[in-house]
Amino acid sequence: MADRRRMSLGASIRGLGYHTSAWRHPNVLPGASESLSHFTEAARIAAAAKFDMVFFADGLAVRGNDRPAGALSHSHENVELEPTTLLAALAVQTRHIGLVATASTSYNEPYHVARTYASIDHISGGRAGWNAVTSWSEQEALNFSREAHYDRETRYERADEFIEVVRKLWASWEPDAFMHDRKTGRFYDPEKLHAADHRGHFFRVRGPLTSSHTPQGQPVIFQAGDSERGIALAARHAEAVYTIPQTLEDCIRHRKAMDTAAARFGRAPGSVRILPGVQIVTGRTEAEVAEKLMLYDEIADPVIAMARAWSEYGDLSGYDLDAPVPADLQSSDRVSAMRHLGERAKAEGWQLRRLLREYGAGSLRVLAGTPDKIAAEMQEWFGSGACDGFNILPQHLPGGLADVTELVVPILQERGLFRREYEGGTLREHLGLPAAAAVG
Amino acid sequence: MADRRRMSLGASIRGLGYHTSAWRHPNVLPGASESLSHFTEAARIAAAAKFDMVFFADGLAVRGNDRPAGALSHSHENVELEPTTLLAALAVQTRHIGLVATASTSYNEPYHVARTYASIDHISGGRAGWNAVTSWSEQEALNFSREAHYDRETRYERADEFIEVVRKLWASWEPDAFMHDRKTGRFYDPEKLHAADHRGHFFRVRGPLTSSHTPQGQPVIFQAGDSERGIALAARHAEAVYTIPQTLEDCIRHRKAMDTAAARFGRAPGSVRILPGVQIVTGRTEAEVAEKLMLYDEIADPVIAMARAWSEYGDLSGYDLDAPVPADLQSSDRVSAMRHLGERAKAEGWQLRRLLREYGAGSLRVLAGTPDKIAAEMQEWFGSGACDGFNILPQHLPGGLADVTELVVPILQERGLFRREYEGGTLREHLGLPAAAAVG
Repeated sequence: MADRRRMSLGASIRGLGYHTSAWRHPNVLPGASESLSHFTEAARIAAAAKFDMVFFADGLAVRGNDRPAGALSHSHENVELEPTTLLAALAVQTRHIGLVATASTSYNEPYHVARTYASIDHISGGRAGWNAVTSWSEQEALNFSREAHYDRETRYERADEFIEVVRKLWASWEPDAFMHDRKTGRFYDPEKLHAADHRGHFFRVRGPLTSSHTPQGQPVIFQAGDSERGIALAARHAEAVYTIPQTLEDCIRHRKAMDTAAARFGRAPGSVRILPGVQIVTGRTEAEVAEKLMLYDEIADPVIAMARAWSEYGDLSGYDLDAPVPADLQSSDRVSAMRHLGERAKAEGWQLRRLLREYGAGSLRVLAGTPDKIAAEMQEWFGSGACDGFNILPQHLPGGLADVTELVVPILQERGLFRREYEGGTLREHLGLPAAAAVG
Repeated sequence: MADRRRMSLGASIRGLGYHTSAWRHPNVLPGASESLSHFTEAARIAAAAKFDMVFFADGLAVRGNDRPAGALSHSHENVELEPTTLLAALAVQTRHIGLVATASTSYNEPYHVARTYASIDHISGGRAGWNAVTSWSEQEALNFSREAHYDRETRYERADEFIEVVRKLWASWEPDAFMHDRKTGRFYDPEKLHAADHRGHFFRVRGPLTSSHTPQGQPVIFQAGDSERGIALAARHAEAVYTIPQTLEDCIRHRKAMDTAAARFGRAPGSVRILPGVQIVTGRTEAEVAEKLMLYDEIADPVIAMARAWSEYGDLSGYDLDAPVPADLQSSDRVSAMRHLGERAKAEGWQLRRLLREYGAGSLRVLAGTPDKIAAEMQEWFGSGACDGFNILPQHLPGGLADVTELVVPILQERGLFRREYEGGTLREHLGLPAAAAVG
């Protein structure tokens, strides 16, 4: 069991990095987003630094399909490996690090998701995590025989029942169900096999699952986002939450809301690990950091920034880029990170040009500075109790991740904030989580 | 490209082996069916012998759930790894051998299947194959919010459209779509990206897929079974078919029916590779073979044999086991292998006891004998043009497979019937298949 005074660190290694034009970075291979060796390298960098996990976001459509013509073809975010097959391959390429991937509760069947993540848990020896999301885009609905995406209420109700079914299926076999008694021919004890017998509003699933009790008992359940409905969902089911706050105050507010919501399900404060995402840019000196930031600015593509803004606010081409962000811009409210960034821009009186630049950089919180400065800020957030660690979103891969592991992690280790060696073999142990509870 | 006078060999390495009580064999680890190292060992045995592929059948429910109480708990076929995650892990553990897994067209979405197998093709460098099946059991329906399985006609219509959608999605990106032009910011040429825009009876799928053109162009499409409806489906879509004939005459009949059906889609005779499944039991001498057969008889579990018969014919407990198989037994007609075996039993006047023993052994065709005898029979089938090779179903794993690779394969190699070294890097090349055609 990990020492709970230590922080958890995840590495989000989807694609080529979180900068929207990461592929134009001179140290990035533009074709690498379907290359196993690219992800193996990134995962091994994170594992060598003793990260808790690698983390894969996911979507079920070519992104930006809804954006103005021309913008889509500038984006590298259009082809990628399917994350559960990628996770299974990375299970072989690594030994200790946790392996977390996203799967949608809107466009999947609980039996498949339960089975796939249980299988990864078996293959990896207890390192699997499932990030349950409700999906957000119309584009995804159109790939699954629907005319439109589910409305927010429906998709959260469906998500709640979906996760409930998955958890019931994971409890199909008791840990000691197998007798393997060659003489009597008894392979298992039928008293220790349980059907799910779920009959709900969205799903009827009999079970049992064709997976025995996994090394972790059940894979770790993640949830992403921090909407009110998302917090309610996480409070019942999630063991860790990936959030995208812009400020420490936002993060503290979220922690409190999560603890309050979780208490309703009899869960103690802090039961749900909170891991804000942060895009770190660091270098040995202030000058090196400035140089890196300038390079990211240079490769940023105004076509993509405008397209992202378009998907959030509609057409902005009539606006003055040097004027403050107009107060009447209405968020589409689909992606929390985009909404948060817009709110911050209005609150801090940014020019529209700066908001667009941040969209180009990836729209999450960018933390830039020397390693000492970065470590100090991480320590402040962690020490305040606002979060249990961080999900690192490198601007480009694998270089942006290596900067963090080489420059920042040793400082965190020196200060006793982060492990120097793995102390457990499972993701659950890395995160200091107890054995999985029965569905409540 | 493989020499077409050479046969293809696949190894079916699902679970612990095809004997229904394989787990009771002294050389089998009963807990290995969720162990990656077990499948790695079997896959490496097949790869060392230069097999075209390993092959995983699959089902979406605990098997035997519909059988008399007590029987289920004698079966090892109740827990297993999810096959696409297993394939991705085996892609890392092997270098050349093809990797084929089953996915149901009745209880999946085409977008997921297209994406998952494309991903495995990328991860494995062009070794993926998809065995498309329509599923057969009520038990599976109950895990996917349905009260009953689709009727035969509906599930074959759905399968036809399902595979059509998958093939359209695999053609989303032209092979040279990616420009990666850092200067202009153009990541790809939008003229070379194509939406599927499929609007059919069962599915509406816009696409495009988030996978580029894969190393094989598209994973190889397999189909299993030899019903009339199955042949019609395979004639349009399949590149290889896994069949389960009991006799050479059956196999020749199937080859002719397949060629006739494929001609309707403008496909030349032999376009669809035919790979009958065979359970081989071999040893250095006749005495060793007899000893092995006796051991399989000893471990065979009458409880399972009766349960299998029950699922095929209903309750047989009132029948005389020493009388011939009654002519009025009606097949449930769900599993071709079971039906074929029953037909053969009636035609050859078996006692009911022998039919039950064959069910216990696995209900497929068992070919037992010294290596010379086995090789001669394989040569006869292959030389007659009835088939393009074989899918080997070992009675127990990995030992039963090693018997074949150590004793039989060298004879086939000496006779020039099977390769001594891999000549290509992809499954398509191993099978001597051309590049994938556009959906017709």
